[in-house]
Amino acid sequence: MIIHVGQGAEESEIQELIRNIEGAGFGVNRSDGRNRTVIGLIGDTSNVTENDFAKYRIVDGVHRIQAPYKKANRLFHEDDSVIDIDGVKVGAENFMVCAGPCSVEHEDDMVALAQKLKATGANTFRGGAFKPRTSPYAFQGLGLEGLRILDVVKKETGLPIVSELMSTEYIDEFVDTVDVIQIGARNMQNFDLLKAVGETDKPILLKRGMSATMKEWLMSAEYVMAGGNDNVIFCERGIRTFETATRNTLDIQAVPVMQKESHLPIIVDPSHAAGVRHVIPSMAKAAVMAGANGLQIEVHEEPENAWSDGQQCLTPDELGDLMQSINMLLDIEKKTANNQQVIQQ
Amino acid sequence: MIIHVGQGAEESEIQELIRNIEGAGFGVNRSDGRNRTVIGLIGDTSNVTENDFAKYRIVDGVHRIQAPYKKANRLFHEDDSVIDIDGVKVGAENFMVCAGPCSVEHEDDMVALAQKLKATGANTFRGGAFKPRTSPYAFQGLGLEGLRILDVVKKETGLPIVSELMSTEYIDEFVDTVDVIQIGARNMQNFDLLKAVGETDKPILLKRGMSATMKEWLMSAEYVMAGGNDNVIFCERGIRTFETATRNTLDIQAVPVMQKESHLPIIVDPSHAAGVRHVIPSMAKAAVMAGANGLQIEVHEEPENAWSDGQQCLTPDELGDLMQSINMLLDIEKKTANNQQVIQQ
Amino acid sequence: MIIHVGQGAEESEIQELIRNIEGAGFGVNRSDGRNRTVIGLIGDTSNVTENDFAKYRIVDGVHRIQAPYKKANRLFHEDDSVIDIDGVKVGAENFMVCAGPCSVEHEDDMVALAQKLKATGANTFRGGAFKPRTSPYAFQGLGLEGLRILDVVKKETGLPIVSELMSTEYIDEFVDTVDVIQIGARNMQNFDLLKAVGETDKPILLKRGMSATMKEWLMSAEYVMAGGNDNVIFCERGIRTFETATRNTLDIQAVPVMQKESHLPIIVDPSHAAGVRHVIPSMAKAAVMAGANGLQIEVHEEPENAWSDGQQCLTPDELGDLMQSINMLLDIEKKTANNQQVIQQ
Amino acid sequence: MIIHVGQGAEESEIQELIRNIEGAGFGVNRSDGRNRTVIGLIGDTSNVTENDFAKYRIVDGVHRIQAPYKKANRLFHEDDSVIDIDGVKVGAENFMVCAGPCSVEHEDDMVALAQKLKATGANTFRGGAFKPRTSPYAFQGLGLEGLRILDVVKKETGLPIVSELMSTEYIDEFVDTVDVIQIGARNMQNFDLLKAVGETDKPILLKRGMSATMKEWLMSAEYVMAGGNDNVIFCERGIRTFETATRNTLDIQAVPVMQKESHLPIIVDPSHAAGVRHVIPSMAKAAVMAGANGLQIEVHEEPENAWSDGQQCLTPDELGDLMQSINMLLDIEKKTANNQQVIQQ
Repeated sequence: MIIHVGQGAEESEIQELIRNIEGAGFGVNRSDGRNRTVIGLIGDTSNVTENDFAKYRIVDGVHRIQAPYKKANRLFHEDDSVIDIDGVKVGAENFMVCAGPCSVEHEDDMVALAQKLKATGANTFRGGAFKPRTSPYAFQGLGLEGLRILDVVKKETGLPIVSELMSTEYIDEFVDTVDVIQIGARNMQNFDLLKAVGETDKPILLKRGMSATMKEWLMSAEYVMAGGNDNVIFCERGIRTFETATRNTLDIQAVPVMQKESHLPIIVDPSHAAGVRHVIPSMAKAAVMAGANGLQIEVHEEPENAWSDGQQCLTPDELGDLMQSINMLLDIEKKTANNQQVIQQ
Repeated sequence: MIIHVGQGAEESEIQELIRNIEGAGFGVNRSDGRNRTVIGLIGDTSNVTENDFAKYRIVDGVHRIQAPYKKANRLFHEDDSVIDIDGVKVGAENFMVCAGPCSVEHEDDMVALAQKLKATGANTFRGGAFKPRTSPYAFQGLGLEGLRILDVVKKETGLPIVSELMSTEYIDEFVDTVDVIQIGARNMQNFDLLKAVGETDKPILLKRGMSATMKEWLMSAEYVMAGGNDNVIFCERGIRTFETATRNTLDIQAVPVMQKESHLPIIVDPSHAAGVRHVIPSMAKAAVMAGANGLQIEVHEEPENAWSDGQQCLTPDELGDLMQSINMLLDIEKKTANNQQVIQQ
Repeated sequence: MIIHVGQGAEESEIQELIRNIEGAGFGVNRSDGRNRTVIGLIGDTSNVTENDFAKYRIVDGVHRIQAPYKKANRLFHEDDSVIDIDGVKVGAENFMVCAGPCSVEHEDDMVALAQKLKATGANTFRGGAFKPRTSPYAFQGLGLEGLRILDVVKKETGLPIVSELMSTEYIDEFVDTVDVIQIGARNMQNFDLLKAVGETDKPILLKRGMSATMKEWLMSAEYVMAGGNDNVIFCERGIRTFETATRNTLDIQAVPVMQKESHLPIIVDPSHAAGVRHVIPSMAKAAVMAGANGLQIEVHEEPENAWSDGQQCLTPDELGDLMQSINMLLDIEKKTANNQQVIQQ
Repeated sequence: MIIHVGQGAEESEIQELIRNIEGAGFGVNRSDGRNRTVIGLIGDTSNVTENDFAKYRIVDGVHRIQAPYKKANRLFHEDDSVIDIDGVKVGAENFMVCAGPCSVEHEDDMVALAQKLKATGANTFRGGAFKPRTSPYAFQGLGLEGLRILDVVKKETGLPIVSELMSTEYIDEFVDTVDVIQIGARNMQNFDLLKAVGETDKPILLKRGMSATMKEWLMSAEYVMAGGNDNVIFCERGIRTFETATRNTLDIQAVPVMQKESHLPIIVDPSHAAGVRHVIPSMAKAAVMAGANGLQIEVHEEPENAWSDGQQCLTPDELGDLMQSINMLLDIEKKTANNQQVIQQ
């Protein structure tokens, strides 16, 4: 951590700041330039924040060098983590394809859909039992009945289940029923919820908050891991920008950048990023070539009759076409991975 | 709601869409242009979403005209709402000044600080018992002990208490102790929490999410009000933009725009917007002239020793100076309000 | 175009507005809802702006349905445009690979580099003679001497030349020397420059402005085309968002969205989007699968000695590796294009 | 400037980097932490860019401490600059009120309007002769005839003239006619234009680019000043964010932050920030209390008949009301400035 001392600071004030830094257990590297003094902290700064030093009146700025996340940090865990979802692996060479409707609907339709999805090569099933909706007047999901239906889907198809948990209230039911607990974008910094799922041993699919920086996203993973649960999978689903032609802006660069920073797997959700279906297949393929460890895609037998988000659903047939392309791309990735040099930095 | 039908839609598809719209209880206004057809819905569209129609393959775009919020909408409640905080009023001509430290600290210090703040003219006391922190390794607040201290502060000073609730777990303790339940920016779309506080009768201070549009913010108020609690106060605290010179960008235009859309009061928090103290006084005064119904400002006796966020705290003396200016400005506002015409639209 | 009349408008005011609309040559579709009146304009609205109607005091909002661009609009030009760059084609099935250094450097080094790039499969050479630099104290490019060197490169290698024009002052020299005039992100709305290059017959590489919406970008192409020059190639190079882990956020969704809106080709520049080299290869491959019509990539023999932007340069060898992958991907794209259905809307 | 060396760098590579830094004339402060090495540069870094060091493969990040602007920097020019606009002063205690229509219209109307504006207290007149319009099909301004009319306005009223220059082509005519050359938001990084106006001695009104950081804005001022023209006035006119309820987001915090960084005056344009007239008066007053050195406001006798941007125009009467409030606020500012302490940092 680097502390810039503002102009006009008295030497006695600088000395006091240095004593406080040393008192907190850090070594100090002081450098006096022509116009200002810079103080470097030596030691493990992951437990202090920039604000711990920005609060001094003589301090003009604080710049962090060591990342504040440890368990999620590739620096201390060089190999890719591989997460096991009831037998389906994700991470390193293992690719996750999570498909299903936005909301859980009628039991028979869900089972029929899941069987079709499985036939295309999808290896996990998604469906929302509890739905975060902008309007209090919109359909809020089937609730516990939705969980029951997801359980039937799993029994009938063998596909592991991914579903979103919105509050700690139903955490026991989720632990009993689903294979991956999804934390939605709006709850990425619901720290109480993160702590609660950190105490389970379920894989956590941690969606990126709409305006979360990658650093904040890594810190949210750190919350889960600090509780003892290392099974975190990131999911990039688009960020909010000035552009309104699509619902969100898919930050595809997040894939290689997060993989450089962290050993945890990262998948991509093109449905929520785009908000319109014609964009989904090209983005799914782009995500594969970006190096993503999987995809989450909304699929519905009849998008025009979906209970929610039909405008961003593929049909099972469209997913089938897409899966053919994806498999070819994954083959190319494996072939070229062996022949080509890695570009550093 | 206006639906744009894409080029190439068959007449039979348009007819089917119209039947579905009429089946949902709406009147239809159809307009055929040279290149495309536009369908207007006639009726109350507050219970349908854009996506309910965007999901049709022949639909190219959906544009909402009627706002999706009703209870928060000034259209149906022309006069300013005035919220009563245990005797302190906010809204219309009534100005709220909420001051206090980021985190609740030692009891004696809190009482002494609150007495000073009251002397400057502050009429409510803020302090965080539970703190949302980006890092799991940072100080998370005193918890229930913090609530106990806030209770002492109120008994000693008479100042109503404002404190942030982070999850439904402690809602009973908050209802028993605090006078205003604050919903933080990160929880603005924690819908389960909004529903829970909507079932209380406490005033709710609803901070704007870091990347929430004003429409989404209004919809979050609607969640609270749909539960029966009409006592919502908005708090603008800065939004996330590309600019990093300040922690957030204070969206001061939100004050007049929200007041045009809604009858609910709106206050401004310059501390969290700026993230640096030298910006706070000018922004507090700007907020008054923007027409805000109050301010929330972090204050600490010794900012350099604050347990959190000291870099954005004023001292009680600095707040005293600021309050003198603010009182002069509020006087001017009252004087000119009577003499000047209102600018429409 | 849809005009929302605000509540409280007098019928006489609405009638006057309608007369003005009709006076401007438009048909009118009026729809009276419970709370407000909506007026639809019938006719070609590409020559009017939203502001032409927003200025009326009774008007609460204006919503455009017909796109304001005509020449760039796929609606009136269904087939993909193919641009001819001195024999190298871009658009439809034709893929452009434009490589070279940020700034033009020594003549011998440029020729040697271009020869290597040509060997990898690159089909155009880029190099900046005039450089837009944030700081007036930074190297501003070799200027006309740079153009002379680019001319030598073309003579020695046969590669068409792409270079950025920053002002109308040197337009004649650019027309004489380069094969593609690049308009940089900072000049995307330098309308005088757009008009000037619209009067040439050179292909124009129109980079997206850092905060330009896709609509504004299309309108900038319209400026060029309105002057008679239809040879516009879009280049997505990243937009500015709150995320600072990369220099810009590559808006890869812009590829399919722009291709749906416009018949003009679009290429992707991962170097400027990322700002760091390790991200470039995966993003280049992702761009191919997104459906881009080409790539622009910065390459330097020794990035650490580049005169500018070395941190985002590949070496010729790294480009060679990348080109092998890209060629495999382009093959897959061709194969699957024939077998798979297109997803509408 | 602080350079972070990545993990895994060889000592010999670090040594070579240090030799290169020293070769460029800087002193070096090296600090070896547990996981990484940090190198501080000692000396004047205003002429080097972060990229000059980021390009080394062993370098993981570069962090600038000394600001890259010198002439605009308050560090080297402690007192507020006061710019003289043909007798009207702006900066320090001197407040500029620049009012007028978006576009120059008929001569008689312009003169009549200017006389009314002068009577309200406005001390400069604005009007666009050349208009940057998003659409090539929209009205582009009267051009040189507009300049002629502005000249008549000045002769008739004595008000100094502010008008936007869009390209170097008409710079001589602007120098002959106008008193302040305005550089519009879209041209804030049109570096050739900045260099050209830097060679004149006219005051330059430098509008902030829609997505320009304050640092970039300061660097654009530096471009003008590097040419010898120190008469730069900043104008905050709103930045582009995700929020669409207003045309732009007025970054009012820019006022105190820019004033801390620079000695140059800064004014605020609420018309372009808001894009709707009802927001303008409250924002104008907020800008005064934020400490702005002036305002630019669009005014038209009949906004509904304005040739452009009528939706964001006040009438002269509305400006008159506003000026009364502003004068009261300026009085308060002067009174309290003497009594209150300044808050540092």
